[in-house]
Amino acid sequence: MSEIESDFYTERLKKQMDFALEIDKEKNIFRQTHLSGYGRNENDAEHAWHMAIMAYILKEYSNEDIDISKVMLMCLIHDIVEIDAGDTYAYDEEGKKTQKNRESMAKQRLFSMLPDDLKEEFIKIFDEFEESATPESKFAHAMDNLQPLMLNNSNGGRDWREHKVSAEQVYGRQGRTKEGSETLFKLTDHIIKENIKKGNISNN
Amino acid sequence: MSEIESDFYTERLKKQMDFALEIDKEKNIFRQTHLSGYGRNENDAEHAWHMAIMAYILKEYSNEDIDISKVMLMCLIHDIVEIDAGDTYAYDEEGKKTQKNRESMAKQRLFSMLPDDLKEEFIKIFDEFEESATPESKFAHAMDNLQPLMLNNSNGGRDWREHKVSAEQVYGRQGRTKEGSETLFKLTDHIIKENIKKGNISNN
Repeated sequence: MSEIESDFYTERLKKQMDFALEIDKEKNIFRQTHLSGYGRNENDAEHAWHMAIMAYILKEYSNEDIDISKVMLMCLIHDIVEIDAGDTYAYDEEGKKTQKNRESMAKQRLFSMLPDDLKEEFIKIFDEFEESATPESKFAHAMDNLQPLMLNNSNGGRDWREHKVSAEQVYGRQGRTKEGSETLFKLTDHIIKENIKKGNISNN
Repeated sequence: MSEIESDFYTERLKKQMDFALEIDKEKNIFRQTHLSGYGRNENDAEHAWHMAIMAYILKEYSNEDIDISKVMLMCLIHDIVEIDAGDTYAYDEEGKKTQKNRESMAKQRLFSMLPDDLKEEFIKIFDEFEESATPESKFAHAMDNLQPLMLNNSNGGRDWREHKVSAEQVYGRQGRTKEGSETLFKLTDHIIKENIKKGNISNN
């Protein structure tokens, strides 16, 4: 940088822009879920986008009052750690053993690219999501469950069939949706039961 | 739907879920911009995700006070109309002649899938973005400009070279970033000048 730019291109702005460019990599982290219309695998960035909009249009179904802006930001950033840690499939029991540790290292590296105040804020909101103890994080988790369930159901349960997922596994994860939204869990439960009936989810 | 479900699966929730599934199609609308690392073309959904996070981490550079939640929602939904209308490249002068009309029809069809209150809210925020008259919409437009500029610059100006874009064209669009952020326009101007110097943007 020449002196001409030094009045605006501060170390702070440089850090913000470096982080903005780094998170572009999230678009290369692919999930097991397929897009509707029997499409390609979905990536983390578009999954996060979808969750944030769904959170906004479904916010009235949250069990508790929520700060919807916080939920949306939480949805948008919750998978950034997967840039380093990779996606761990919801029913990959081996992968889940190391997931916490991999994601914790990723969190430190990635959010440390930001200026300290933003770093602290993003780590706080990421941790809040992970802990799933507040109304906002419970509702964000409901979106993290409902969004792939919706896509998978629209594709005739293809992802469940391919991975030979059992009802117990699906309820183990999707059951937690009721912590965020009783209404959306009823919808979830209906969708799961229909897919068990059709043989897309195994019942043993 | 059987009677058992009728207590939760209201016409309202059905509309919300139909819309949520429909917007999945935005992930199939590809832009001219390429991902960093000389990657594939970017799609609208991941572009919107990227813009929303950038808006949050760069909000301090807005010329005016902004409601950042509104900016983020605006960023997330501003390209939904392209599901029907397709992406119009920023420097496609022919395409831009019909863009307004195509997007207006798309707006009606897509947002009409939502319950009336949400339909009105989304159309209002989409129109506000399009008119670019409020502090929030000016800052959202700054993100809509800065995000592809950043990616393109990271790829050595490949997109500008491929499309033989001139400095006049680039400034015609990117110049408006200063309405949202003087600081981010200074950064933009620096990046454009560097790319003119390197011959990535033609200077005639």
